Amino acid sequence: MPATSDSSDSRTAEQVRQLFNPRSIALIGATDKSRWSWSTWGNLITHKFAGPVYLVNPRGIPVHGQVSYASVADLPEPVDLAFVMVPTSAVLGVLAEVADAGIRSAVLLTSGFAEVGEEGAQLEHQVVNLARKWGLTILGPNGNGFINAAAGITPYGLPIEPPLLRGPVGVVLQSGALASGVLNFAQSRNVGTSLLVSMGNESMVQMTDVMRYLIDDEATRVITLFIESIRKPAEFLALAREALAKGKPIVALKVGRSQAGAKVAKAHTGSLVGDDAVVDVVFRQNGVIRVDSLEDLVITSGLLAGTGPLPGRRFGFVTASGGACEIIADRSQDEGIEIPEFAPQTMSRLREVLPAFAATQNPIDVTGYILIDNQLMRKALLTVADDPGLDALVLATDLPKIAPPDPAPMIELFRGTAEILRNSPKPIVVMGNTLTDITPFGRQVAAETGYPGVLGGIHHGLTALGRAVAWSEAYRSAGQRVSPVTGQPAPVELAQEPEAAWSEHRASRFLAGHGIPVVPGVLAASPDAAAAAADELGYPVVVKLAADDVTHKSDIGGVKVGLRTAEAVRAAYADVVGAGQEAGADVQGALVQPMRDGGIELLVGVITDPAWGLVLAVGFGGVWVEILKDTALLVLPAGRDQILSALKNLRGARLFDGPRGTEKADLDAVADAIAAIAALAGRLGDRLETLEVNPLLVRGSQVEALDALITWRPRT
Amino acid sequence: MPATSDSSDSRTAEQVRQLFNPRSIALIGATDKSRWSWSTWGNLITHKFAGPVYLVNPRGIPVHGQVSYASVADLPEPVDLAFVMVPTSAVLGVLAEVADAGIRSAVLLTSGFAEVGEEGAQLEHQVVNLARKWGLTILGPNGNGFINAAAGITPYGLPIEPPLLRGPVGVVLQSGALASGVLNFAQSRNVGTSLLVSMGNESMVQMTDVMRYLIDDEATRVITLFIESIRKPAEFLALAREALAKGKPIVALKVGRSQAGAKVAKAHTGSLVGDDAVVDVVFRQNGVIRVDSLEDLVITSGLLAGTGPLPGRRFGFVTASGGACEIIADRSQDEGIEIPEFAPQTMSRLREVLPAFAATQNPIDVTGYILIDNQLMRKALLTVADDPGLDALVLATDLPKIAPPDPAPMIELFRGTAEILRNSPKPIVVMGNTLTDITPFGRQVAAETGYPGVLGGIHHGLTALGRAVAWSEAYRSAGQRVSPVTGQPAPVELAQEPEAAWSEHRASRFLAGHGIPVVPGVLAASPDAAAAAADELGYPVVVKLAADDVTHKSDIGGVKVGLRTAEAVRAAYADVVGAGQEAGADVQGALVQPMRDGGIELLVGVITDPAWGLVLAVGFGGVWVEILKDTALLVLPAGRDQILSALKNLRGARLFDGPRGTEKADLDAVADAIAAIAALAGRLGDRLETLEVNPLLVRGSQVEALDALITWRPRT
Repeated sequence: MPATSDSSDSRTAEQVRQLFNPRSIALIGATDKSRWSWSTWGNLITHKFAGPVYLVNPRGIPVHGQVSYASVADLPEPVDLAFVMVPTSAVLGVLAEVADAGIRSAVLLTSGFAEVGEEGAQLEHQVVNLARKWGLTILGPNGNGFINAAAGITPYGLPIEPPLLRGPVGVVLQSGALASGVLNFAQSRNVGTSLLVSMGNESMVQMTDVMRYLIDDEATRVITLFIESIRKPAEFLALAREALAKGKPIVALKVGRSQAGAKVAKAHTGSLVGDDAVVDVVFRQNGVIRVDSLEDLVITSGLLAGTGPLPGRRFGFVTASGGACEIIADRSQDEGIEIPEFAPQTMSRLREVLPAFAATQNPIDVTGYILIDNQLMRKALLTVADDPGLDALVLATDLPKIAPPDPAPMIELFRGTAEILRNSPKPIVVMGNTLTDITPFGRQVAAETGYPGVLGGIHHGLTALGRAVAWSEAYRSAGQRVSPVTGQPAPVELAQEPEAAWSEHRASRFLAGHGIPVVPGVLAASPDAAAAAADELGYPVVVKLAADDVTHKSDIGGVKVGLRTAEAVRAAYADVVGAGQEAGADVQGALVQPMRDGGIELLVGVITDPAWGLVLAVGFGGVWVEILKDTALLVLPAGRDQILSALKNLRGARLFDGPRGTEKADLDAVADAIAAIAALAGRLGDRLETLEVNPLLVRGSQVEALDALITWRPRT
Repeated sequence: MPATSDSSDSRTAEQVRQLFNPRSIALIGATDKSRWSWSTWGNLITHKFAGPVYLVNPRGIPVHGQVSYASVADLPEPVDLAFVMVPTSAVLGVLAEVADAGIRSAVLLTSGFAEVGEEGAQLEHQVVNLARKWGLTILGPNGNGFINAAAGITPYGLPIEPPLLRGPVGVVLQSGALASGVLNFAQSRNVGTSLLVSMGNESMVQMTDVMRYLIDDEATRVITLFIESIRKPAEFLALAREALAKGKPIVALKVGRSQAGAKVAKAHTGSLVGDDAVVDVVFRQNGVIRVDSLEDLVITSGLLAGTGPLPGRRFGFVTASGGACEIIADRSQDEGIEIPEFAPQTMSRLREVLPAFAATQNPIDVTGYILIDNQLMRKALLTVADDPGLDALVLATDLPKIAPPDPAPMIELFRGTAEILRNSPKPIVVMGNTLTDITPFGRQVAAETGYPGVLGGIHHGLTALGRAVAWSEAYRSAGQRVSPVTGQPAPVELAQEPEAAWSEHRASRFLAGHGIPVVPGVLAASPDAAAAAADELGYPVVVKLAADDVTHKSDIGGVKVGLRTAEAVRAAYADVVGAGQEAGADVQGALVQPMRDGGIELLVGVITDPAWGLVLAVGFGGVWVEILKDTALLVLPAGRDQILSALKNLRGARLFDGPRGTEKADLDAVADAIAAIAALAGRLGDRLETLEVNPLLVRGSQVEALDALITWRPRT
């Protein structure tokens, strides 16, 4: 994807701004026979679009009870937006008329383009080329349009159930039907949107363009994405980093986990680095919150829209149910939310305000006496809010669903609580027990009292809190982080065109030549030379087949270990070379190395991901790497500290501590070696496919590459 | 807990039946000042309890606008149920009056008993003793009562929002406040209950008693449990097995995961067998469906109440959204739901009924043309239902939320779909996109058309499908399963009172004496004896400290490996015995064994769980067992096939296949050895604390215990 220049960027941004903010709209292909036409017209009327809406129907007959115009040319004035619903075959002609009429933006609802195959893709290509020439910006085709709730502009092809809730959540969906599902669910959570866009085929306006708009949009505090595929990874990354720096969270549901096969590659690393695992790590490294469900997408977005960054993960919970406390404790453990014990003064004050039989631990159950003393929750809340060991609080309670005969006392109660929540020095999040709709009466109570958003149940609520806290930490450390790389690293010049693969001997020499610690080794071309090398290196030794085209030597009997005599070395030479010849390999001889025993074997691999660039994989080596897949991924460039932290977060990290009398690993030395490998990979250019050290042997502070493999892409 | 006799069982069952089916009720402690009193009275009136309700207030003044009686003795007739809401201090006196009046059942709402500490527990004990004497059955104290929706009997202390939906789900909750939360959530899912019971302190009627009632209750098709603790594990298990055999699913949310610490024990096994992990395996082995959230509790129960056992895990999905298809694919992979490709004839028929641009793969997106052809979903559904490779279908669509101006056409459409669903030869489950309430209009549509339950969104819907399919498989195999154990195994008589622990030599001899394969070994009492033993066994050998009070020999330097000469053996003897003496151990000498190398090390441990009895843990051994915790648990007795299946399901099971030139393990031989260890543990009686073989070395078909440890409980 070629980088666009700044002026083209700002031109695109201005076009997108115009697209989403039209002052007048023409519905082209409007007809009483189409439900899309009825819905779009109905949406604009119901949600009170302020400007004129013109209907264009080729027969010029009344449509939706209004006059219509037979063609775009007949419109009484040029409009800002054409909403096009004509059949696929008529699209090109209509768009030409649209452009002729001086209209600069179009939503193309029609389907039958790239989504149906090659023929449709060609038509779409034709449309885009002409639109570019005409200066026309197209959203779609094959989308539902957009809802600019902040501005009350709703050119959207499916019915929008009133009320349309305005709010700070900007939603971008690479799906049509789900756009309405998300909108309805957001309404049921009382989460309002600023802008909701159903992208369609992204023929011109892409997800990243709308992200750009939302980052700049003051009405938007959270960006919510439903992603099928990320077409412009580099732009996506840059926008994600900008959003994080600005404290505007991005919450994303990225589908396709199940299809994402692991990449096929010659190195072991390949089987560990699946597309979806890379998406995971890209998101995590750049502060994009990933969720697994539409419910979590909206609930997490709604939470962060209300709270902004949370100060920490130590929460106090105030509930009126012991059972809820236990679910909260279980779910908090799942999501990394800490529930510290209250300070002694908090407990003694709780004993004063709560009934004698109530326990005073966190999470706190104020008991069923809430039915007798409706101030109980508040008293507990105010007490707990003063606890010095907590970062934030959760009040577990639901909004009322149905209005009582006289709602006034209930509304007063909620008004009082809302005031406490507003005035609290620590953030207080409200969370219901289960995920049920916030009803019209609940919305009314919230609106009248300034009550905050209510998390949809303990289960999803804790997911949202966990994600929000993790994002908040990423946001804070983004502020402190020094960019890990300054300038471009100097590329390594290769002396000659690389073959498909450099196997052990060649790869090891190359690594050693660039400062990576490598076990000594001698390439021997005869049994006697091997024995002489062994005498030199000291016994016991290992003898390995040297052949660039054999990447898994041990599988063909190309490795002999624990050799203690010259005789054994000669025999081993014959064996491994014979095995290589039998396999038809391009045998260069055998590599003789001193035998290392003990220590911890790591696999360190760098692979080039087509979307995200170099990805580093680090895990425990040997047979375990394939079986347990306990591998940490990092998208490069990554700093030494990130590598160190990844090592410490491996499931088997306790192995580094020297259990059962083994030697404790010097993790700083390990991180240095891995950082050196990663840095070298970064200097090898786009021909690099894989650089793998397997194993990297760690014995205390001695860190050595025992075997290595580099594979190269064919020249393109 | 002593086993109760059959006649006492049936007496209890009859008492519980009477408790939940009263024809007349007295509210004792009724007063206008109590919200519990108002709620209970209101519930009985609103939900139309058929029999008389009498109010008892010590002052005899009008209550809730009705006459009241000053004491139970004044009631015009004896009632079937006393609903007691008096203050804690008045409970004993009132219950005496209740018993005197010939009332046989009471709900005790009052709190201040065992839940508040020792004093309350004593009062509760007193209440129970007297109640037993009086022949009075008490539900509570400290619960909310119950809702017998099937019979329209609602003595329940918190408001029940109408409508109260009757249905086939029986709910038992060890929580008060959550009972209402679950009821409200069930209403939002249009899931009706047969009986809902808030257990309170379970002073007399316990969760297992209500489970017994629900298993026998014809109005109940699914049993739904919120569990804080299982007081009678043996009864619970027996009921779980009976429910499974009868095809009545039990769905349980068991809280306390986060508190469940691992058990403290001398053996390694102890650190692997946490309380909650055992609950998991007990549930899984006995067909109890475990869920993590209140939402999944109700949604999974509602699904199984509608479908009963599902025929398999191969599903066809029909949706109107490509985005939904992708979420479905991801979630299906998470939950073990298979989405096979359609058969060729299905695809060609789909091409006929769907628009040309629609794809014909599973999950299927019928596309937005559903807006033009509202028969599209049905046509696709009927086509897919004929696919020979599918067990069941899912139709992804929501019930309408708001009535259109003329609801008749919509209702007709749903009536038609409902008919297709009813007449389908394969089960068809309906699932919404997101979890939002089924509204009153949605309920009306469902009721008028006979439309089935709708799963609450893709996320929870797939969880429910996965759980339901797993339960269905357990149900089917329960029908085929031959009981793994017939009769009681013969107990092993111990020659003498066991000490706290039998360390390696003694434990190994004991195992060998009972048919477990054990590596040969000689207990030597001097350096020379050790050397002689090594000469006999053949070099290399291992020398290990023999001392029953040292359970982790290697930690104190009590193990020397790879000894190749008599000299080395003598030195090793001195070292390990010296290390034992230095540690103050009761040294018996040193054990000499032939050194084994290669092979796979397993840990096999049996631990006595206080609730569930013997639990077998099997996992990969050595340092990995502690670090990776890749351990399978089975509650004993378990058959050899279950052990084999547990081995195959270990995360590292590929190690058995002989990767990288290692020897392929004979899993039958491994399962035989483990089954022998488990069987021996079952014969050691209730003094056994732990029996551990670590490692059990597997080299091809040679399986040997290399080290063993048995620990015993003190005599009680």
